Amino acid sequence: MEKKWRTAITQHIGHETYIRGYRLLDLVGNLTFAQAIYLILKGELPNEKESKMMEAIFVSVIDHGIAPPSAIAARAVASGGNSLNVGVAAGVLAFGSAHGGALEDAMRFIQEGVASQKPVQDIVKEYLESKKPIPGYGHRYYKDFDPRTKRLMDIAKELGFYDKHCQFAQEVEEEIARQKGKRLVLNVDGAIAAVVSEMGFDWRLGKGFFIIGRVPGLVAHVYEELTMEKPFSKRLDEEKETEYIGVPPRELPPEFRKL
Amino acid sequence: MEKKWRTAITQHIGHETYIRGYRLLDLVGNLTFAQAIYLILKGELPNEKESKMMEAIFVSVIDHGIAPPSAIAARAVASGGNSLNVGVAAGVLAFGSAHGGALEDAMRFIQEGVASQKPVQDIVKEYLESKKPIPGYGHRYYKDFDPRTKRLMDIAKELGFYDKHCQFAQEVEEEIARQKGKRLVLNVDGAIAAVVSEMGFDWRLGKGFFIIGRVPGLVAHVYEELTMEKPFSKRLDEEKETEYIGVPPRELPPEFRKL
Amino acid sequence: MEKKWRTAITQHIGHETYIRGYRLLDLVGNLTFAQAIYLILKGELPNEKESKMMEAIFVSVIDHGIAPPSAIAARAVASGGNSLNVGVAAGVLAFGSAHGGALEDAMRFIQEGVASQKPVQDIVKEYLESKKPIPGYGHRYYKDFDPRTKRLMDIAKELGFYDKHCQFAQEVEEEIARQKGKRLVLNVDGAIAAVVSEMGFDWRLGKGFFIIGRVPGLVAHVYEELTMEKPFSKRLDEEKETEYIGVPPRELPPEFRKL
Amino acid sequence: MEKKWRTAITQHIGHETYIRGYRLLDLVGNLTFAQAIYLILKGELPNEKESKMMEAIFVSVIDHGIAPPSAIAARAVASGGNSLNVGVAAGVLAFGSAHGGALEDAMRFIQEGVASQKPVQDIVKEYLESKKPIPGYGHRYYKDFDPRTKRLMDIAKELGFYDKHCQFAQEVEEEIARQKGKRLVLNVDGAIAAVVSEMGFDWRLGKGFFIIGRVPGLVAHVYEELTMEKPFSKRLDEEKETEYIGVPPRELPPEFRKL
Repeated sequence: MEKKWRTAITQHIGHETYIRGYRLLDLVGNLTFAQAIYLILKGELPNEKESKMMEAIFVSVIDHGIAPPSAIAARAVASGGNSLNVGVAAGVLAFGSAHGGALEDAMRFIQEGVASQKPVQDIVKEYLESKKPIPGYGHRYYKDFDPRTKRLMDIAKELGFYDKHCQFAQEVEEEIARQKGKRLVLNVDGAIAAVVSEMGFDWRLGKGFFIIGRVPGLVAHVYEELTMEKPFSKRLDEEKETEYIGVPPRELPPEFRKL
Repeated sequence: MEKKWRTAITQHIGHETYIRGYRLLDLVGNLTFAQAIYLILKGELPNEKESKMMEAIFVSVIDHGIAPPSAIAARAVASGGNSLNVGVAAGVLAFGSAHGGALEDAMRFIQEGVASQKPVQDIVKEYLESKKPIPGYGHRYYKDFDPRTKRLMDIAKELGFYDKHCQFAQEVEEEIARQKGKRLVLNVDGAIAAVVSEMGFDWRLGKGFFIIGRVPGLVAHVYEELTMEKPFSKRLDEEKETEYIGVPPRELPPEFRKL
Repeated sequence: MEKKWRTAITQHIGHETYIRGYRLLDLVGNLTFAQAIYLILKGELPNEKESKMMEAIFVSVIDHGIAPPSAIAARAVASGGNSLNVGVAAGVLAFGSAHGGALEDAMRFIQEGVASQKPVQDIVKEYLESKKPIPGYGHRYYKDFDPRTKRLMDIAKELGFYDKHCQFAQEVEEEIARQKGKRLVLNVDGAIAAVVSEMGFDWRLGKGFFIIGRVPGLVAHVYEELTMEKPFSKRLDEEKETEYIGVPPRELPPEFRKL
Repeated sequence: MEKKWRTAITQHIGHETYIRGYRLLDLVGNLTFAQAIYLILKGELPNEKESKMMEAIFVSVIDHGIAPPSAIAARAVASGGNSLNVGVAAGVLAFGSAHGGALEDAMRFIQEGVASQKPVQDIVKEYLESKKPIPGYGHRYYKDFDPRTKRLMDIAKELGFYDKHCQFAQEVEEEIARQKGKRLVLNVDGAIAAVVSEMGFDWRLGKGFFIIGRVPGLVAHVYEELTMEKPFSKRLDEEKETEYIGVPPRELPPEFRKL
């Protein structure tokens, strides 16, 4: 009978653990963490170049300060008097479609774009006409180029990952500029999306790269909150920083008064 | 063989659902929500007075505005581009030992205090000497009495729930004033703790009353966030509202430079 | 300057809390929990009939046993050694598009269907031709009618909530039977969706009714887990109940061996 | 005025991000992921040996199959119809005191034990007499030695991290055997605890090593669930695998019947 809980990730034989077929104890001390992550996600060991690219990608998203929704949520939850894992989980929850989701969307756009073999010109035209934002393009500050994209693309080129997905991503950037008369830079989400697509990862796994890369940042934030701040710390001054925009005080109608 | 998943809450017989032995469809239309909650938590139906007390308790904690950690976490997570349930769950996560936990702690204090049959005088003395805060006592603004406590205690008296646990709770308040020369009011957590202890609920369930009562407030906040605010809304102005207190910029040592 | 944290739900004036304009302490003892929930979600007090309908709806979803993903997740997380709130939050997380989401989808279908004024015949035809499932219809066991739907619809009729949304929902059921030659019953998600649409609630709030109604069930499950079962209880017998379907054991290539 | 949101982790200057003082873009391509994690947690760059030790530790906990509470919770939540991040967060929630918490407890035990300068004999005696379990010792299968501990300790010795914390941990193992007449092996939690203590990490951060190391495994599990299994998949056969141990069916008393 087929079992209801099936997995292709990890197997126990006797008291030994095997990850994707490799004895875990052989991996310990022999693989870097990023190599082991590549193995567990992809099912195969990375070569030297894939290893280096993985390291670079995870490092590039490790933290972005205290202001993003994930850091706020993680620290607010920790502040309620919870353990490290609970605060970190709240941060991971914040990685929705507007916070990390762009990476997944951009991977899908690039992978479907390349697979379609349609002219880049037509793809961009369709998006611009429908006024949908193209995932992975545009940045609040960077109008010329995104320095993080440049860094990752330079590394991708050096390591031999600059092929049809990266090319497609940069052609789209040029084509937007041509059709729109204004540059929307390939941003860091788009750059990572292009590179991991080149490495053969499925777009449905997209958010995973962001989650894995950012969790250490969340651990640092929650640890800092727990050791540096008081519980239930007042981060929001209700009088000065919040605004009530609802109905003014009113009387409870007499038919409701029982006590 | 004993099954690994056991429960005394709900049973399915044929296609019918039974909650604590009662057919669910008989409960629908016949019980108020608070009565059904009492049933599922306690295992038995409430009488008229228990029903009224339950309603009052849940209503008393339904919301406390946008500033507590739970509302901040819930709205930050929703703002990351997530569904209603994800934002609400983040809010529930915030209900740690410093946010709702006082209710559990106060229930334990009152139940163990009453069961011990020790003189209130000794119990208070022990706490004051050890400088541990007594859970359920003290309030930032209310120095004389907490109006929410008064309201709940008035209702408890009218409904016949003012017995040894409520008495104990109020004797402790008086005893603290006597020994300390300063009043620490029985706050709303302490008041609810006393009343639900009177009703026979186990302190380990304490946070549950707060969770159930506050979830509707969290639903309202997350719905408001999702329909009124933009995703990834900038709630924290990094330049003006945050402060970096770490090491200043420094150079990466040359031995790390590879690319 | 416009404040960044805005809300129309709750206001504090002095040390008093106002919910949707009403003094919280006036609500305590005068409103049932379901009435207060209606107020906080809708912004206005319910009348007698709306109150009764609310009570019935929340009771109807209060629990569904230990087998749904939400109960499994809640109990597994509790079993890891966590507080009540953490287990409950994990349960709420499980309420995704396949678990509670049908209520939201069905509300949207009914509200857009009624608003469109298109003939029911055309609406059903479109769905059946596109082979999309119609949200709120169909059930694994109930082939003739869903007894929970009957119960809720009977109550809705008695309380005067059987108007165009409920009619639309039941016409769709008949029309499916006509066009398909086979009945797909209006299930309990569809029935609740019809009734709360009749009451004027926005479909974006749909999952909220399910969350609020089911949280007490989750509290009961997590409390039961914490008091009745051992931590890290082995619910899954790896040898008997799980199946490894990945690659067989293999050797780590020599170029990876460092230690 | 002191700001309410303070951090020593990450700073933005112009449009550049600095992690613990180092320009993020300099870290990308130059640091391995584990080195960047060390930096963000500790505040300083690791040397070559610290880097290798970090890699080994994270790899050692990367996954433990589909049966632990974290994998069950993550997959159940994903199965409810949720995004990757939501399933992963549910898994992280499961890392409570009974699942990953042993690492934190063992770090505390070792750090306080070493700092106390008390004879190991006395420390063990105290625990054994009070019948408290010593965190980090004992294993269900391994009665002689834990092969994972051996592997990590061998690496620690080779890299020069076998000093007073590791010695203390192994002396405790011997002392337990002596006093108890039965060996409780230093398990993998205890081994990691000893090594990261040697590296100077605070025990309050303990669970963080487990969280960071295991999140890639959770990502793999949730991705597998989302791509390989149907939503709301029936993992628990209610009839065969669950047991109802509550009250049998009973009639709703007539005084509750309204409709």
